[in-house]
Amino acid sequence: MEDQISYHMTPDEFRRQGKAVIDWIADYYETVEQYSVLSTVKPGEIRAALPPHPPAQGEPFEEILADFQKIIIPGITHWQSPNFYAFFPANTSGPSILGDLLSSGLGVQGMIWLTSPACTELETHVLDWLAEMLELPEKFHSHSSGGGVIQDTASTAALTAVLAARERITDYSSNETGLQHRLTAYASTQAHSSIEKAVKMAGLGSQNLRLIPVDERFAMRADLLARQIDKDRQAGLIPCFVCATVGTTSSNALDPLEQIGRVCQQEGLWFHVDAAMAGTAALCPEFRYIQSGLDYADSYAFNPHKWMFTNFDCDCFYVADRAGLIRTFSILPEYLRNQATEAGTVIDYRDWHVQLGRRFRSLKLWFVIRHYGIEGLRHHIRSHVDLAQEFAGWVDQSPDFELAAPAPLNLVCFRHLAGDDLNQQLLDRLNQSGQLYLTHTRLNDRMTLRMCIAQSQTIKRHVEEAWNLIQKTACDLAETI
Amino acid sequence: MEDQISYHMTPDEFRRQGKAVIDWIADYYETVEQYSVLSTVKPGEIRAALPPHPPAQGEPFEEILADFQKIIIPGITHWQSPNFYAFFPANTSGPSILGDLLSSGLGVQGMIWLTSPACTELETHVLDWLAEMLELPEKFHSHSSGGGVIQDTASTAALTAVLAARERITDYSSNETGLQHRLTAYASTQAHSSIEKAVKMAGLGSQNLRLIPVDERFAMRADLLARQIDKDRQAGLIPCFVCATVGTTSSNALDPLEQIGRVCQQEGLWFHVDAAMAGTAALCPEFRYIQSGLDYADSYAFNPHKWMFTNFDCDCFYVADRAGLIRTFSILPEYLRNQATEAGTVIDYRDWHVQLGRRFRSLKLWFVIRHYGIEGLRHHIRSHVDLAQEFAGWVDQSPDFELAAPAPLNLVCFRHLAGDDLNQQLLDRLNQSGQLYLTHTRLNDRMTLRMCIAQSQTIKRHVEEAWNLIQKTACDLAETI
Repeated sequence: MEDQISYHMTPDEFRRQGKAVIDWIADYYETVEQYSVLSTVKPGEIRAALPPHPPAQGEPFEEILADFQKIIIPGITHWQSPNFYAFFPANTSGPSILGDLLSSGLGVQGMIWLTSPACTELETHVLDWLAEMLELPEKFHSHSSGGGVIQDTASTAALTAVLAARERITDYSSNETGLQHRLTAYASTQAHSSIEKAVKMAGLGSQNLRLIPVDERFAMRADLLARQIDKDRQAGLIPCFVCATVGTTSSNALDPLEQIGRVCQQEGLWFHVDAAMAGTAALCPEFRYIQSGLDYADSYAFNPHKWMFTNFDCDCFYVADRAGLIRTFSILPEYLRNQATEAGTVIDYRDWHVQLGRRFRSLKLWFVIRHYGIEGLRHHIRSHVDLAQEFAGWVDQSPDFELAAPAPLNLVCFRHLAGDDLNQQLLDRLNQSGQLYLTHTRLNDRMTLRMCIAQSQTIKRHVEEAWNLIQKTACDLAETI
Repeated sequence: MEDQISYHMTPDEFRRQGKAVIDWIADYYETVEQYSVLSTVKPGEIRAALPPHPPAQGEPFEEILADFQKIIIPGITHWQSPNFYAFFPANTSGPSILGDLLSSGLGVQGMIWLTSPACTELETHVLDWLAEMLELPEKFHSHSSGGGVIQDTASTAALTAVLAARERITDYSSNETGLQHRLTAYASTQAHSSIEKAVKMAGLGSQNLRLIPVDERFAMRADLLARQIDKDRQAGLIPCFVCATVGTTSSNALDPLEQIGRVCQQEGLWFHVDAAMAGTAALCPEFRYIQSGLDYADSYAFNPHKWMFTNFDCDCFYVADRAGLIRTFSILPEYLRNQATEAGTVIDYRDWHVQLGRRFRSLKLWFVIRHYGIEGLRHHIRSHVDLAQEFAGWVDQSPDFELAAPAPLNLVCFRHLAGDDLNQQLLDRLNQSGQLYLTHTRLNDRMTLRMCIAQSQTIKRHVEEAWNLIQKTACDLAETI
């Protein structure tokens, strides 16, 4: 009789509430420009609005949704606003949201092939499609020696690469004996913080990460990399891993992959290329130069969840030698043994990364590629780059502002000529206005504003309004000084 | 003018297609029992049905959805079928799917407080709610010295714990200098494979992971743990980390936390408790004994995405000392600096785990807790345990089968008396029938079937049918031998 009682949502209620949620999201995208881009709540304000104790009895879904609107939305910074220019974007799109919704509905685990063959095979297939769309080196295709896998983030991809590098250089012994050598890793001073984090987690130690100086374009100096490797060898250390960046977080700088790759090849180092943001640009043949030299790479990562209209999380990670990767991560407990795995005829992605469990993430990627087609994706990428180039032109021609770095793609680094204080005040006032959201960095030790134009819905009108507001706000500030 | 062209799905089309997807999911849950639980496709079959090249032009959403049904669904192993008894479950529920859908729609990043304050504060709040609901030790609450954070999986939580342990024992020097000591870690022979994986990734080496023997209930022998630690100290090694399991993957064995905890306290070792599956049972006061001794723990993990009707991924990870955790993972690049962070008045969760980017995962957890209420969650947990106990009783009374291990909660390990071959054939034939999906393990070096009763929709009728099928199939097999 107990069986008759159920607290689960019935399919009928799911239909009703699900459609209400779909409408909420559609309304949200239609009105997102009306919100302050940056949330204006104070620390603790959201928590204070929530009941201190969990409910003993279930509550109607309408009430939950009403509280979501009333309590949660004021605490949201609107990453899907077309006026969001901060950090790098985290784009969504209709087909991606719906692909992800189906993944939630199916609720399958893709840890091994057997636990949902389609989850593994669609992932391999779509990552091969992407390798073709980006014209990645042949070795990254699954029909060659390597292949692709979806990771959650470029941070985890970097950790995965460092671990595979650590094992390869120590002949796969560190996994067994523990790390017994002093290994060194290399990235530019502009590399993402996740590289240092990965080097720490893998046990190499941040002191053994060499941050190689950059040139005037903030790109790694390959000659200084080679010199540092020599120096480390002479000191009895074991150089192991190099990360080059295609589109650094601070300024979208492009490391010279070809030169760095040759050094790595000569020295026998693992060469990882992090193109988290900029990699998507290679969908367009005219931007494909950014990955010239990728032939040398052992691993490559880029994030469709940044600039390819695919919901977080979706980092595409490719390796040239899948056998080495699998050897690094493979564990086979009894309860996962099965004929397909033992026969070696299938991919078991749990051996390609940190986690065991995995969501059906290729669905959203498949939906995005099919909905837009290559042509549609290229159109929006080109539109973003055009807008950024136009914005860079305005900055360049302005008597009050200057470009702080080259802007090869969709990120413009700029500053007001009046110095750090004014730029800081300008940033704060712009963000407090709620009309846009920008973030900053430091380049050549000077406060620099970053304008990243890559949000799905951003069109020319938004960028023009942003530039007008930036000029006007700077003007007001300059007067008060 | 280029701006006028858009390949994005319009809000109106999103409404239409979104509602079609909602209906698809509702239909799916209404008909999921009709599918073969385990997919019957052969390796390569799904890929062969997909076009070899990506589409140049976008395609109508109806076609994408039709292909999803035609090509993908045959390759699905139905984790949401009430006849899914394999591994541990990966439960979903209506409120969870819809909470996750809103998270996709908002598309915010919660890497730091500022990038969406509600994403951080709701997470802290709901994890405090859960600590109260489970009656976890005070120190795991955010108002105390510790706090909770959502990780993707128990594997990553284990890695996080090992890294925090590694840093604490080496006075936070390994992150800087690299690992320079031989550290040892401890878990039972029955611990999850993710512990070995974590120990490898963190650079400790699998040879330095001691697998402590278990008693007749497959629970760790705390006396042998203490002895091994002594031995390792005498050999000049540095004991560092112990993982105890509440509900092992093979047999749901419960390690004696109290005894293990006392050893860890005396020896100054980091004590991690992995309750990935069974932890949810502590929602019910009568099962709370499983976590007796948790007061000694430094970290604790359990997965609402297994048994608490919350979509993957959602692992709740608690630490007693958040300062140590943050010190292990903290990195602060210039582009993430902001006033709220510098003032120290907020939590920035990116310092609590491996990744930088993070999804708004607490929404689905909040929706689940509010929809079911504590009472509703308890009802379904109790119902699963009751069904498992009933099933265990049937096995126990059967002349042909035996229980292979105690069944304290919702996992029943059993075997036919006719030996490994028959049990393997029985498993294969049952799974090939499509009517249910079971997996196996080895206990005392004998083939053992695992029946985990924890799928959201499983009720008595399903378990009865499963037992009938198991008996009948075994009978048929025994006759043919």
